Amino acid sequence: MVANIYATFRLHKFFCIFFFEYPGEARFLVVFTPFLYFCPVEKPGLPSGTRDFAPDVMLKRKYIMGAIESVFRLYGFLPLETPAMENLRTLQGKYGDEGDQLLFKILNNGDFLSKADVDALEKRDSKKVLQSISDRGLRYDLTVPLARFVVMNRDKITFPFKRYQMQQVWRADRPQKGRYREFWQCDADVVGSDSVLNEVDLVKIYDEVFSILQLPVTIRINHRILFDAFADYLGGGNALQRLMQLVDKNDKIGFEGVKKEMESSGIQHAVSFWQFLFETNALHSNHAKLDAIRSHPGGDSGLLEDACADLERIFSLVKTKQNFILDLTLARGLSYYTGAVFEVVPSAESLPENFQIGSIGGGGRYDNLTGVFGLKDVPGVGISFGLDRIYDILDAAKLFPEISGNDVRVLICPMLETCIPMAFELVNILREGNISAEVYPGAVKIKKQLDYANQRKIPFAAIIGEEELKNRNISLKNLNSGEQHNYPIIQIPEHLHLWQF
Amino acid sequence: MVANIYATFRLHKFFCIFFFEYPGEARFLVVFTPFLYFCPVEKPGLPSGTRDFAPDVMLKRKYIMGAIESVFRLYGFLPLETPAMENLRTLQGKYGDEGDQLLFKILNNGDFLSKADVDALEKRDSKKVLQSISDRGLRYDLTVPLARFVVMNRDKITFPFKRYQMQQVWRADRPQKGRYREFWQCDADVVGSDSVLNEVDLVKIYDEVFSILQLPVTIRINHRILFDAFADYLGGGNALQRLMQLVDKNDKIGFEGVKKEMESSGIQHAVSFWQFLFETNALHSNHAKLDAIRSHPGGDSGLLEDACADLERIFSLVKTKQNFILDLTLARGLSYYTGAVFEVVPSAESLPENFQIGSIGGGGRYDNLTGVFGLKDVPGVGISFGLDRIYDILDAAKLFPEISGNDVRVLICPMLETCIPMAFELVNILREGNISAEVYPGAVKIKKQLDYANQRKIPFAAIIGEEELKNRNISLKNLNSGEQHNYPIIQIPEHLHLWQF
Repeated sequence: MVANIYATFRLHKFFCIFFFEYPGEARFLVVFTPFLYFCPVEKPGLPSGTRDFAPDVMLKRKYIMGAIESVFRLYGFLPLETPAMENLRTLQGKYGDEGDQLLFKILNNGDFLSKADVDALEKRDSKKVLQSISDRGLRYDLTVPLARFVVMNRDKITFPFKRYQMQQVWRADRPQKGRYREFWQCDADVVGSDSVLNEVDLVKIYDEVFSILQLPVTIRINHRILFDAFADYLGGGNALQRLMQLVDKNDKIGFEGVKKEMESSGIQHAVSFWQFLFETNALHSNHAKLDAIRSHPGGDSGLLEDACADLERIFSLVKTKQNFILDLTLARGLSYYTGAVFEVVPSAESLPENFQIGSIGGGGRYDNLTGVFGLKDVPGVGISFGLDRIYDILDAAKLFPEISGNDVRVLICPMLETCIPMAFELVNILREGNISAEVYPGAVKIKKQLDYANQRKIPFAAIIGEEELKNRNISLKNLNSGEQHNYPIIQIPEHLHLWQF
Repeated sequence: MVANIYATFRLHKFFCIFFFEYPGEARFLVVFTPFLYFCPVEKPGLPSGTRDFAPDVMLKRKYIMGAIESVFRLYGFLPLETPAMENLRTLQGKYGDEGDQLLFKILNNGDFLSKADVDALEKRDSKKVLQSISDRGLRYDLTVPLARFVVMNRDKITFPFKRYQMQQVWRADRPQKGRYREFWQCDADVVGSDSVLNEVDLVKIYDEVFSILQLPVTIRINHRILFDAFADYLGGGNALQRLMQLVDKNDKIGFEGVKKEMESSGIQHAVSFWQFLFETNALHSNHAKLDAIRSHPGGDSGLLEDACADLERIFSLVKTKQNFILDLTLARGLSYYTGAVFEVVPSAESLPENFQIGSIGGGGRYDNLTGVFGLKDVPGVGISFGLDRIYDILDAAKLFPEISGNDVRVLICPMLETCIPMAFELVNILREGNISAEVYPGAVKIKKQLDYANQRKIPFAAIIGEEELKNRNISLKNLNSGEQHNYPIIQIPEHLHLWQF
């Protein structure tokens, strides 16, 4: 047992005090510092908000990422990867003030202070000093790097450009349950096409991925132009923006909550519109909802027609296995999106009781991806999968298939040094047949070898002792049932297939 | 055409000067700064030493990584991933002084100067200030994170622990051809076993991966104990270390070069030993080399026996398709390795003329992976693949298979708006049969649609016009041969299979 040291204080030049836990109880010790070299060296840890992914977790993550990637590829999307570091001027100003705060900045190498802003340094102005000692930051999302890539390579890219990207992003948020400083995004975007047929494919991708993962979900869709059509009716752009912010809170605070916040934030006149949206949203079919909103007298009929035509086209071409509903209370944030917006939530019946989780995917259409880098009129539409949340749900709902635990089928156990060449002969035969297998590294006691097989969850052991060596007849043992038979070495692969489980 | 601005200087409060290239010639312009808002906005770029991987490159990289990963899995290795960021105290002091310099450090978030070392700040001592404003750095290799992981999870890990890890690392080296600040390592290690049977598997992994990639290589092996056996003969540890450093230069500067450097660095007495090594190395077989070194009168016979026994065991169990040779001039660096060492170089005949490249893989045995974190006596052995160099060779030698260019087989081309539902009907049929396909997003001119197919290198087009719509008979065109036939919609998948190329 190792003692956990949880605090150290220096009392005096020659003494310090350690607080530690051993065995399970808090204790302390005063130490004469010249003896300190007897103490254990540093205990390593992870930066707050980051995680190691041990093999059992990695295999499950790969299962999810494999499902997403295979569907992206089937739909004609191609992979892109961009560097972890971007120039700070590429990142800054793209995510609002709060986003700028949450960027991880990389210190310039070498004698960075020699180029620091002297005035700002004297004044201890961290914000200003930063600009002179850091030129790079870590990627904050996958959309700004995509925009930068499109601008830099616009002469080489074939448009419509269908790319997917599955990489980490970093945000210096306060870590908490389900929120990390390093997390994964899995995005697919179509850049350079304003056809709503792209939206059809993206909804089908959501449907297909969650079918493969056997996770029932609801795919929600709405259209930003439906809101825009009521801008004048609501009294202008500001009221509309505030409405969209509040509408998004419906999932959390409900109809009455949204209503109260509307009243207290100066858009009382929007309350009746909110009531209309909420009630229309309860109608039984997507088409009934569209008919109701079309006949609202306050809407701009041209804009309403545009939005409804898009949505009707999508509904007519998408045939999902999952729930696919028009959700008029879906707005998805403020200024970015300009057309259809999507969100995916797990169906309540697929979740364990009391399991709270938000959306596991989202996206939408934007009209101006690259404007901020000086390239105008590049439209696009994209979706994103929240890998970490999907993992948490599949784990809690026990939806991971058994196979994703390990892929070694056979541990080959040599009981004597002299059996090792035959062990390698067998492992070669198995691997040539594409059966994952390994030889225990050393002719140690058979119990130790089988313990290792059990801990690794390897289902079969091929045991080679003196008898087996003589007869070239190997003892194959099913470690789950305990069943055991001898077979000629060359027949082991076929018997493994027969015993498959 | 866009003008490339390559320098800007401010001349005066109200004037600045731009140097730019347009059209293709250098020009300059003096600008009255209040007019500057007419200028194009920022042109985005990449941090020096980093790269985007566009889809064509990504597909080839995935082909290499897929080959490596499939063999790792076949041999029973399991995936591990660790965070991009590590605590600086985990990284510092592990890679020597030069390594510490090359670490990318992440600035602490928020008002970082408030906690900065005031004395050091006054003295502009960057090195000391660093410790108080940066707690984290970017991963420098995959070995220190592995050691940290093993120490933190030693109670949960089943030993021997066989893990692979394929992730980026970051080093603030001066960028140059083939050397990047962000690059990939693909490592496999066995931790917690001192059996030489692990070495056997690792050599076989090298052999199998390069067989799959169809790249002929030479796998070199040597044993550090062979050097240790001559420590006394050479006059102690320092002379031995210097010898090992110089021996590694043989590939670059040759026999005479190494000899000269030995003479000038005070180990003249090692020259005759170097001559012996070099001549022995030219012998025709691995066993002849071992016999020669065994019978050298200066060696410690116990150590020689240990090393030769290991090597003979490896030779007897490894049956490679590639060249596998004992190279007595291979030392691989200084203090880290303690047993067998490996290196992989591409065979000269596989390289294009005048193509210079170093090793594309390396590794070896170490006795004390985790000692630096306070966990003693954890032995291990590992290998690494140099992804970026392997990519460069396969690209230069044209060894990438054609298939890795794209996976969309069919572009479905609707010639009229009314054909779009049938286009989606067909794409659903194809995707259900796991054939990657896409509908061109919009019934635009057929030439534009076929241009897109050609640029994306999509081999087939399924064209749906008025006739096709009426008869449900789709026109399938082979875009390479120009051949074209009409088939009922439901038969398209089988005809694609027949036309496979």
